[in-house]
Amino acid sequence: MTAQGSASVFAAPKRPLAIQRFPLPEKIEDEAALLRVTAAGVCGTDVHLWHGRLKIPVPVILGHETVGEVATLGSRLNRDLLGNPLAVGDRVVFASGVSCGRCYYCAIAQEPTRCLRRKVYGINLTCSQPPHFFGGQAEYVYLIPGVCIFKLPDGLPTDAIVAVGCAAPTTVHAFENAGGMHHGENVVIQGAGPVGLFSLVLALEGGASKVIVLDQVQSRLEAAKKMGADHVLNISDFENSEQRVAKVHELTNGIGADMVVECSGNPKAVQEGWLMCRDSGRYLEVGHYTDRGEAPLNPHIITRKQLKITGSWGMAPRHYLHALRVIEKVWSKYGLNQLVGRKFPLEDSTQALEAVEKGEVVKAVITP
Amino acid sequence: MTAQGSASVFAAPKRPLAIQRFPLPEKIEDEAALLRVTAAGVCGTDVHLWHGRLKIPVPVILGHETVGEVATLGSRLNRDLLGNPLAVGDRVVFASGVSCGRCYYCAIAQEPTRCLRRKVYGINLTCSQPPHFFGGQAEYVYLIPGVCIFKLPDGLPTDAIVAVGCAAPTTVHAFENAGGMHHGENVVIQGAGPVGLFSLVLALEGGASKVIVLDQVQSRLEAAKKMGADHVLNISDFENSEQRVAKVHELTNGIGADMVVECSGNPKAVQEGWLMCRDSGRYLEVGHYTDRGEAPLNPHIITRKQLKITGSWGMAPRHYLHALRVIEKVWSKYGLNQLVGRKFPLEDSTQALEAVEKGEVVKAVITP
Amino acid sequence: MTAQGSASVFAAPKRPLAIQRFPLPEKIEDEAALLRVTAAGVCGTDVHLWHGRLKIPVPVILGHETVGEVATLGSRLNRDLLGNPLAVGDRVVFASGVSCGRCYYCAIAQEPTRCLRRKVYGINLTCSQPPHFFGGQAEYVYLIPGVCIFKLPDGLPTDAIVAVGCAAPTTVHAFENAGGMHHGENVVIQGAGPVGLFSLVLALEGGASKVIVLDQVQSRLEAAKKMGADHVLNISDFENSEQRVAKVHELTNGIGADMVVECSGNPKAVQEGWLMCRDSGRYLEVGHYTDRGEAPLNPHIITRKQLKITGSWGMAPRHYLHALRVIEKVWSKYGLNQLVGRKFPLEDSTQALEAVEKGEVVKAVITP
Amino acid sequence: MTAQGSASVFAAPKRPLAIQRFPLPEKIEDEAALLRVTAAGVCGTDVHLWHGRLKIPVPVILGHETVGEVATLGSRLNRDLLGNPLAVGDRVVFASGVSCGRCYYCAIAQEPTRCLRRKVYGINLTCSQPPHFFGGQAEYVYLIPGVCIFKLPDGLPTDAIVAVGCAAPTTVHAFENAGGMHHGENVVIQGAGPVGLFSLVLALEGGASKVIVLDQVQSRLEAAKKMGADHVLNISDFENSEQRVAKVHELTNGIGADMVVECSGNPKAVQEGWLMCRDSGRYLEVGHYTDRGEAPLNPHIITRKQLKITGSWGMAPRHYLHALRVIEKVWSKYGLNQLVGRKFPLEDSTQALEAVEKGEVVKAVITP
Repeated sequence: MTAQGSASVFAAPKRPLAIQRFPLPEKIEDEAALLRVTAAGVCGTDVHLWHGRLKIPVPVILGHETVGEVATLGSRLNRDLLGNPLAVGDRVVFASGVSCGRCYYCAIAQEPTRCLRRKVYGINLTCSQPPHFFGGQAEYVYLIPGVCIFKLPDGLPTDAIVAVGCAAPTTVHAFENAGGMHHGENVVIQGAGPVGLFSLVLALEGGASKVIVLDQVQSRLEAAKKMGADHVLNISDFENSEQRVAKVHELTNGIGADMVVECSGNPKAVQEGWLMCRDSGRYLEVGHYTDRGEAPLNPHIITRKQLKITGSWGMAPRHYLHALRVIEKVWSKYGLNQLVGRKFPLEDSTQALEAVEKGEVVKAVITP
Repeated sequence: MTAQGSASVFAAPKRPLAIQRFPLPEKIEDEAALLRVTAAGVCGTDVHLWHGRLKIPVPVILGHETVGEVATLGSRLNRDLLGNPLAVGDRVVFASGVSCGRCYYCAIAQEPTRCLRRKVYGINLTCSQPPHFFGGQAEYVYLIPGVCIFKLPDGLPTDAIVAVGCAAPTTVHAFENAGGMHHGENVVIQGAGPVGLFSLVLALEGGASKVIVLDQVQSRLEAAKKMGADHVLNISDFENSEQRVAKVHELTNGIGADMVVECSGNPKAVQEGWLMCRDSGRYLEVGHYTDRGEAPLNPHIITRKQLKITGSWGMAPRHYLHALRVIEKVWSKYGLNQLVGRKFPLEDSTQALEAVEKGEVVKAVITP
Repeated sequence: MTAQGSASVFAAPKRPLAIQRFPLPEKIEDEAALLRVTAAGVCGTDVHLWHGRLKIPVPVILGHETVGEVATLGSRLNRDLLGNPLAVGDRVVFASGVSCGRCYYCAIAQEPTRCLRRKVYGINLTCSQPPHFFGGQAEYVYLIPGVCIFKLPDGLPTDAIVAVGCAAPTTVHAFENAGGMHHGENVVIQGAGPVGLFSLVLALEGGASKVIVLDQVQSRLEAAKKMGADHVLNISDFENSEQRVAKVHELTNGIGADMVVECSGNPKAVQEGWLMCRDSGRYLEVGHYTDRGEAPLNPHIITRKQLKITGSWGMAPRHYLHALRVIEKVWSKYGLNQLVGRKFPLEDSTQALEAVEKGEVVKAVITP
Repeated sequence: MTAQGSASVFAAPKRPLAIQRFPLPEKIEDEAALLRVTAAGVCGTDVHLWHGRLKIPVPVILGHETVGEVATLGSRLNRDLLGNPLAVGDRVVFASGVSCGRCYYCAIAQEPTRCLRRKVYGINLTCSQPPHFFGGQAEYVYLIPGVCIFKLPDGLPTDAIVAVGCAAPTTVHAFENAGGMHHGENVVIQGAGPVGLFSLVLALEGGASKVIVLDQVQSRLEAAKKMGADHVLNISDFENSEQRVAKVHELTNGIGADMVVECSGNPKAVQEGWLMCRDSGRYLEVGHYTDRGEAPLNPHIITRKQLKITGSWGMAPRHYLHALRVIEKVWSKYGLNQLVGRKFPLEDSTQALEAVEKGEVVKAVITP
């Protein structure tokens, strides 16, 4: 009888996820691998997917932030992307997106996150056909040829990685896309969710002078303060947007921030953020993964202030590597592993989504 | 009796300009110069100033696009910015803006167009005090120490320079600010006024593959076509914005433009332009010098398409130099001098403003 | 009986190439294609390979600059890289290098020209095993899955493409790598071979003000002059390096060039080129594909002049696309097709190598 | 009787410096200031100047790394560059270089460190004429109009600033010039003098993953290790250059460093450093302020490895600001103030130079 594994399956919007058993693949392709999942982060995007706000094929096993142990290796897969030897039992992480390498965005524009045939674990790979295991919320995950795998160093806690899940490489991408940081810059971060908190880490580890974090949830601001934000501002403490803009200028010698990172996903935050930039400052539009609609914005501000606005979408393998290196270096200093608020068994995947939706935890994790 | 010179003075919004006589300076500072004005371009911004849409000190002599001949040189001024010898009678152009060199934007951010104490000829230098001559619409203009002067090469017609007036260095600035061009890129230009037409020149001279120009004035589109645009689209020929976006994609292998230059000044053009960009494309926000208010814009587009949006304001001396070099090389090829539609004597300055306002001419010029 | 095709085979250094017949593949992989070769450029690198100066596996069919017509298409290959429909009989060009997509340089550094498992047609793909046809000097060439194919537009002469062969995308790469061009820059080009001449095209089409070309072969300088170089300098006309540097400064207002492109392959040209740059200028090291050994160089010049020196190796698919777009736009203006000096039948491949080696032709082409 | 102040004067190469008394200025220009010197760092460049290796006008008061207290302020100077109020008694630092703002390098290239009329305190401003006090090794220093002044925050020790003297802004310049850092990069630093040690700080504070420092002086390597270098390599422990290059590759997954910073000033280190870079890596040429002559270098390495080599010279006001912000944030963490090895009274300036020359101290400071 064939061995099987459990998975939590999303089949229709807003309905509870259901546990299903799928047969494990009998044969692993030469350059593929089968992992036993150790931990699968639950991301805010999973909640959006669950609510049907993003169109994806169903049924799908959610989970695009996954740490696992190598269960089986294809015959020609014996090293990770950096050339480290890979063996059964090794703890690894992998880039959830697989780009085709041959479309306009892969071969010409060199923007693999915009690959026209991009496959993303836990998002657009249905589990209806073998080998089924294409998402993190399952006992196993099957890595097709071409998935970029990174062996994890000893001593780096699994929790530290899933805690910052896809937020970490996403944020690394955004900073890279904006041209990187320069030493001594003042940075404003709008929103202190996972993307905002990792932006705080990157700003501090990028040589920032002052980092100012805004949010309306006091517990998030306290987390930011504890992690080293120079100033945290609760947006509810101000009468209006003008006052918040004025406060940022007051804290930056009347000049404004060199860099403002939008991590709120709120269209109304955008113009306020533009005004918090110094002239010729950079605005990183990283929070709008979901379409939250339009807001009134004045393009004259872009011209007059000579703003540099950069959007960035998702992350490519290179951002995983660089994020991992940062996490390895500083997880202990910032207590990243402690951001995991609660762990759920596989059968409680629906409760995990609810906990994230309600903001009960900074980070929820499934441990199959 | 002291020598005098005439000037056309703007004293209050919407009222006709009045000719006034001012005494010529008896003494020229060591590093200053007095020019006899040959030609002064009338810019769309002059119309905005005249209507009181931009706050400036009055009375002021309008005119920030000026070609003149050296009448008197200060004792220590004997070379132009490039080191060419300067003498009485030489035909020159000068950077209309003078930055302080010591404020945050000059000394730290290196963005002289955002200098906190910026002086601009024809805009924020009042003529109420001696030496009075601080604008181009006059028989003379007085260049204070620090003004960057460029001697004009023989054979380069004055008309070719004033025709593209401040549009040329402004556009050079915008292209530079967006990281320059790469060979073989597809470019869309929204708006075929002076800034749009010079963007067309820069795109073609920057190695563009296809250049697509949009406007609603057929004569402007014909000018663009004649100058070498690969495609000109009259926006009125399309039922809606989606169709225009679709047309641009159709003309660019379904991918969108590598670079879109906003030269329309219309807030509604902005989101349409974002959608005309390919993913990870560049959007140059150069048309919004005047505050035309807000438009509904969706920040999700910036994130999803990974756009790079860059604003740029005015121009610094370096942009004059580079614009001049381009003009010198290609004025004949593009017939730049022929863009001057009509010349007005100094006393008809008001009529010149009206002609520009009504769009009767591509470019109006005062010849004092 | 199986169909066969002829190829010119390089089996050992300095020995004449020999015509061999290989069977055509009976089956084409789903995403592969078989081309009938129309023209194969002979590159200086082919001469180096022939002389054994670069280690490659033998036997090999030389030729990495190939235009062909589609003879057979794999079942799943029906569009070129830009999405244009592909059919039997279409005239195409292809990127000679195929990168793996998964190594450090492909997936992390995004530098496919440094791919650790790079395959290059006509260079490191031996013809000993089926399907044999891995070089341009043959009646057929077999394009393995992953080769980037570009359909050629009607009206663009095959000669115009092979004339600038790999020099065109190589040069596009070098310019891109140096950050692109800015309008109004002064450019020096050291060496007027194919790479130098295409650099001249890119400089002129990139908005250059003055372009100065140096070489010691008068016919090459005449070609450069005819194509539009503002100044051509025969290095033999100067007593020493200092005089050449002085001449460049004289031609650039005493400042030096904004950009110097090294296309000579001569180590001794390098320091001279550094000194021809203005301070903070860019030096493009594109000519040293072959290891010509060391030269005495003074690093103090790099520090003092704040030089930006960028090397670039080969070309990726994106450079083919951008080069093709430039060629399509300007081949007629520069007479690129006329750079093909002589055409050789396949059986005279050895003579073609000798003609290139002796400099008898600007460009030799094999027409199988 | 006029008040006077003492200064240590360098009048001829290799001769002891002599204390001289100069009259204090009776009148301060409107935008000038007189400082009472608190501490003046002794830089390696001072030793080169003293030995006559760099041509400067004499007599000169050495010292270009100066902290002082405001003794007198010009009537129109009441704020520092950031707009902080300035008053007598305030502790300040200033940018030692003053650029003209109007030459090609100031106005066009925006490279003030290459200003054609650059004045540098302690280097090219002679003390022969009033107000004499143009160097840090004196009781007073006179800041001419245009000098960029930064008020120091309370709590930031003077020693922490002079310890990293001009090395700090120089290094900030070099990193900025190379495009800044990206998170997770591996960095090699060649040479652990003041420039190398501050590069270490910038690498660690710029998000570096591994930082590897090379030197031949064990005490310097120990300082680097203590400050946080991941690996320190004594170049004497290796048989040859190849072994050192191999070691760096071994420590970086066989790939090489993303960034190598040359801080040794040794021409022979350059090619070794190029080979320590990964392909497409960056090489920062910051150590060659003095002309140490040529070394044999192979340009083929630049092409083949696609290196990006950037030189940078000195520092502009912006680098002071950004360096100060970094120092303020991290001086305590790295114990920067403890790098000051010994303090000398003004009359022992010659001994201070000797101590630096012999490498007896990491940093010597004059306390007038």
